[in-house]
Amino acid sequence: MSQPVQHLAIVGAGMIGASWAALASAHGLAVSAYDPHEVARERFLGHVERARSQLTELGLTGNGAVSFSTDLAEALAGAGFVQENGPENEAVKRALLAQIDAALPPDAIIASSTSALVRSAIVADCARPERVVVAHPFNPPHLVPLVELVGADEGVVERAAAFYRGLGRRPVVLNREMPGHIANRLASALYREAVYLVEQGVASVADIDAALCNGPGLRWALMGPHMTYHLGGGEGGIAGYLAHLGPSQVRRWQSLGDPSLDAETQAKIVAGVAEEAQGRSIAELEARRDEGLLAVLKARTLVSA
Amino acid sequence: MSQPVQHLAIVGAGMIGASWAALASAHGLAVSAYDPHEVARERFLGHVERARSQLTELGLTGNGAVSFSTDLAEALAGAGFVQENGPENEAVKRALLAQIDAALPPDAIIASSTSALVRSAIVADCARPERVVVAHPFNPPHLVPLVELVGADEGVVERAAAFYRGLGRRPVVLNREMPGHIANRLASALYREAVYLVEQGVASVADIDAALCNGPGLRWALMGPHMTYHLGGGEGGIAGYLAHLGPSQVRRWQSLGDPSLDAETQAKIVAGVAEEAQGRSIAELEARRDEGLLAVLKARTLVSA
Repeated sequence: MSQPVQHLAIVGAGMIGASWAALASAHGLAVSAYDPHEVARERFLGHVERARSQLTELGLTGNGAVSFSTDLAEALAGAGFVQENGPENEAVKRALLAQIDAALPPDAIIASSTSALVRSAIVADCARPERVVVAHPFNPPHLVPLVELVGADEGVVERAAAFYRGLGRRPVVLNREMPGHIANRLASALYREAVYLVEQGVASVADIDAALCNGPGLRWALMGPHMTYHLGGGEGGIAGYLAHLGPSQVRRWQSLGDPSLDAETQAKIVAGVAEEAQGRSIAELEARRDEGLLAVLKARTLVSA
Repeated sequence: MSQPVQHLAIVGAGMIGASWAALASAHGLAVSAYDPHEVARERFLGHVERARSQLTELGLTGNGAVSFSTDLAEALAGAGFVQENGPENEAVKRALLAQIDAALPPDAIIASSTSALVRSAIVADCARPERVVVAHPFNPPHLVPLVELVGADEGVVERAAAFYRGLGRRPVVLNREMPGHIANRLASALYREAVYLVEQGVASVADIDAALCNGPGLRWALMGPHMTYHLGGGEGGIAGYLAHLGPSQVRRWQSLGDPSLDAETQAKIVAGVAEEAQGRSIAELEARRDEGLLAVLKARTLVSA
């Protein structure tokens, strides 16, 4: 058995890195962050502070020390776990992970937040690739519980999963790597149809968005699609659903659209989102989203308890 | 200007009809329900009572009278609005809507809850098809706010939308009819990819469900996909997102799966859902879903206020 992780190193101290740092600190871990750009320091510490105050609302009152350095070796020193959040560029990430791998004792775990790259490509230059996992969070990582895990060594994946569970996350383990992992593939499939409905002029962008968040999106904050159909299948559950409505589900799949994201459709989407935003800035909308997420997370906690 | 609706008739008194009845009653409307089967009476009234008590938790304390009849003319008498929830069979619904249409004065609106049929097919035998709309709710309709509206007459659609807004619903207007309307098409697109990931063995059914409801599903309880990408686009918003990440979104679409829902995959799904349910009955899972929906709806109300 390995010791519980006491010290998390963050490599790449943008928004995602700062969210991870806030989450770990709020659970009492020491956090040392690295970013090559000194200019990142102030924004990083400011974001950690804002995220920490949100986490306090969720009852997380830990207060692990958070430091920032432009020296990688300094940030990595003593860390039992590293969360890498560098640029989404395969060559850059591959070199960065190899550098981290070379600097750490063998029992430390290295996790990459990558959303778009696959594990096999980015661990290729590591001397100990088996201790490197993909651990993809959802934005903002200090609030959204999902962490998608891809690894090559079962023991490492289990230790990583335990680490994230300790941070109140819900790790989901992929049996093999897939571009986009799971959740972004689901989101992308849904978005293709949303764009098709815009392209075809079926409804406004605002109404298509409203149809999701006032309908299936509400239920999907509580359960996934299989369980949703299980409850939609009457007394026969999912087996009854598939037996009776499976054929119509397959027909629906055949009727789904294959839109192009050409200039005309992009312009429709941009104009539609502007109408939907009703003059609110991205910062305002983000603040509202985070407020909403906090409220929903609190609600889910009450229900689970 | 027409008078506000004081009396809603429910045609088809199953679970959906009972949910509509509870919602209208909790907003103070008189409700008269019709079902050809006397045996439906007790279950209908029981479900209305349970749904009413949930609505009380949301602060809806209206108490409109609710009646049940096996006589259609009796249930329709005096109704300004009819919500039809008959079987999802085109011939049956077409005949039923024609019968309702013939029995009502011209200014009453007739709405069909149909999920799978399109408006043009089911209004074909009505003498006044222009006053018939599709108004598709999401299960359970007394909790989930979405109502998808399809009509032929702008004035009728606007009156129907006002009626549903008065019941605290969020009507979404389709510019033209589409099989599956909007939300079920989005759900179906997402489900196709979920089934693909099961078929390919990428993760367990439970983990695929967890990836949705701990990740994008949480955000989608608050905002739709376009607004989500608007906030994921950095300072450039949705325009920046489409310009920089549009091509990778299109590549992702091309990589999505096209699964078959054959016996083997169905068996995997059924076994996976059984594992996920951990012995909980459908009734228990439904109760938990409704409890969760109530909590999330209360949370959203706090954020909107």
